[in-house]
Amino acid sequence: MRTARDRVVAAALELFAEHGVSGTSLQMIADRMGVTKAAVYHQFPTKEEIVLAVIDPIMEGLQPIATEAARRRTTAARRRYILGAAIDEIVRHRRLAAVLSFDPVVTRLVRRHPAMSTITRLVDLLTGPDPSPATRVDVLMVAGGLVMAGAEPSLSDLPDETLKNHLYQTSLRTLRTKPI
Amino acid sequence: MRTARDRVVAAALELFAEHGVSGTSLQMIADRMGVTKAAVYHQFPTKEEIVLAVIDPIMEGLQPIATEAARRRTTAARRRYILGAAIDEIVRHRRLAAVLSFDPVVTRLVRRHPAMSTITRLVDLLTGPDPSPATRVDVLMVAGGLVMAGAEPSLSDLPDETLKNHLYQTSLRTLRTKPI
Repeated sequence: MRTARDRVVAAALELFAEHGVSGTSLQMIADRMGVTKAAVYHQFPTKEEIVLAVIDPIMEGLQPIATEAARRRTTAARRRYILGAAIDEIVRHRRLAAVLSFDPVVTRLVRRHPAMSTITRLVDLLTGPDPSPATRVDVLMVAGGLVMAGAEPSLSDLPDETLKNHLYQTSLRTLRTKPI
Repeated sequence: MRTARDRVVAAALELFAEHGVSGTSLQMIADRMGVTKAAVYHQFPTKEEIVLAVIDPIMEGLQPIATEAARRRTTAARRRYILGAAIDEIVRHRRLAAVLSFDPVVTRLVRRHPAMSTITRLVDLLTGPDPSPATRVDVLMVAGGLVMAGAEPSLSDLPDETLKNHLYQTSLRTLRTKPI
């Protein structure tokens, strides 16, 4: 059963894909839904709050990945766990990511998001203790590569499982970490 | 000899670093320079034009890299050439990149820039003819990784030559391409 909030989010995402977040107004969302602007405003007083309703669960989904990874004993095991779990999340949200990433409004909200500290923690776990400069560069290349490649429209022809598999293999090779 | 335009750009970059592009006004630039807003406006009627004065030469610097790379005969030789040249550019502008990248205004201007077609061409040259899905993922991981790692404030302690060397080695390993 979709709530009124879900219906606003669904209409907003359609319009974001067509016009970008900045090019979409609450009025356009109301028109798409066939309701008044006041009805949309009642659920979400600002467009930013709609974007947060989309990105909050994704950002918060990262927390258990960090907790579970920290339980593994070696950096290699942590890397395999984090990469597997993070790539699942990235690919699961790939259509959304292609729409939302690089959007100015989204970029600002993500960078100020409380869960950014979890991302820093995931990067630290991937890097391991006392890293060399080479290892720090490797990890940041992988982090940047996953964010960009996961949201890349030119890879949209690849099935989810194919994309996941290649992102995982490439990340492990970049990090010089064995698959098992 | 610095022109009036150069002085505006220098003052603007200082303020962009402190307040972001969106948080900087022509009035703030004028105040920093100790001139009137009209004097700044005379050189650059909008803030966007100041940003373009910074990014235009960087974006246009990519064109000769694509032309020269296309003269090499193998994909491996093209990759080594493009990576070497592109990493030089990225690291040369790393302080600027840390300030400007992810800024909403800059993101919008870069994505609409005429030289974006050169970036697409560089990606195609790195990929090579008839690429497998694995190769396409590898190249986009490297492209994303270089953009993100090159602009990453947490690597600012690494000297330019160290960063260049690691970015180059990591990129080649990711692409399964031999250094020589």
